[in-house]
Amino acid sequence: MKKLIASLFAGVVAISPAWADAVEEMIAVDRAFSAMAQEESVPAAFAAYAADDVMMFPDGGQPYQGRDKLIERFSGWTDGATLEWFPQAGMASSSDDFGFTWGRYVSTSPGDEGEKVSHGKYISIWRKENGEWKFVADIGNSNPEPETP
Amino acid sequence: MKKLIASLFAGVVAISPAWADAVEEMIAVDRAFSAMAQEESVPAAFAAYAADDVMMFPDGGQPYQGRDKLIERFSGWTDGATLEWFPQAGMASSSDDFGFTWGRYVSTSPGDEGEKVSHGKYISIWRKENGEWKFVADIGNSNPEPETP
Repeated sequence: MKKLIASLFAGVVAISPAWADAVEEMIAVDRAFSAMAQEESVPAAFAAYAADDVMMFPDGGQPYQGRDKLIERFSGWTDGATLEWFPQAGMASSSDDFGFTWGRYVSTSPGDEGEKVSHGKYISIWRKENGEWKFVADIGNSNPEPETP
Repeated sequence: MKKLIASLFAGVVAISPAWADAVEEMIAVDRAFSAMAQEESVPAAFAAYAADDVMMFPDGGQPYQGRDKLIERFSGWTDGATLEWFPQAGMASSSDDFGFTWGRYVSTSPGDEGEKVSHGKYISIWRKENGEWKFVADIGNSNPEPETP
């Protein structure tokens, strides 16, 4: 019986793609990033997880590069605005040091006629630096509210 | 003199980052992809460069996965609509088999009140498969017309 379990386990390991661990790592980091945005603040979370040479692609705005600029832009974050995101899946390089996660987001912003709710999806591209995953690019766009967010 | 030139050249090679070749390759492939879209058609080019498990993130629509679905969606391409894009830069993994390019796009669609022009930016994520680069994810969003497209 022990032998059977061992072979089953070996089988599971064998069929796992080479990049599974890196993808799992990136999804876990993206979840921690999202949790920090809720528990601390969206600007603090973006500053914490961004690589120094990060490239940002804001929906409706021009792209820009650099963690310093990111911090400056996010310092203008609207009071009462929220951004929550939900990592779904990802892919990684064979070297397990580069890849992306994608997910869904829901953002709200306060307005004269009540709260405005927006739904969308995003891609974050991650690079492992000295054992730590940092995002090197971030882009998102809108979609109608999905049936399951 | 020959020796001086040789050392200068060696210096240039030494300061090139390890991933420069993969980024150059991806940018060249993205340019060929864009050229095919103009010379043949946008649907033909997307079908030619997409990986089988490609993930698509259309602006304003739900994400979907698979080259088959991509071909089906692009078969509904509006007659007379155009999409041109201009690769700018990218990054790659240390294994030189995974990375992304980003660029600017200009799209036009015919309408009752004349042609509608939209400007934006995109990220294409690339994976090298049997020596060939295929895109595994594609996402874009809008921005005002940049000063230099």
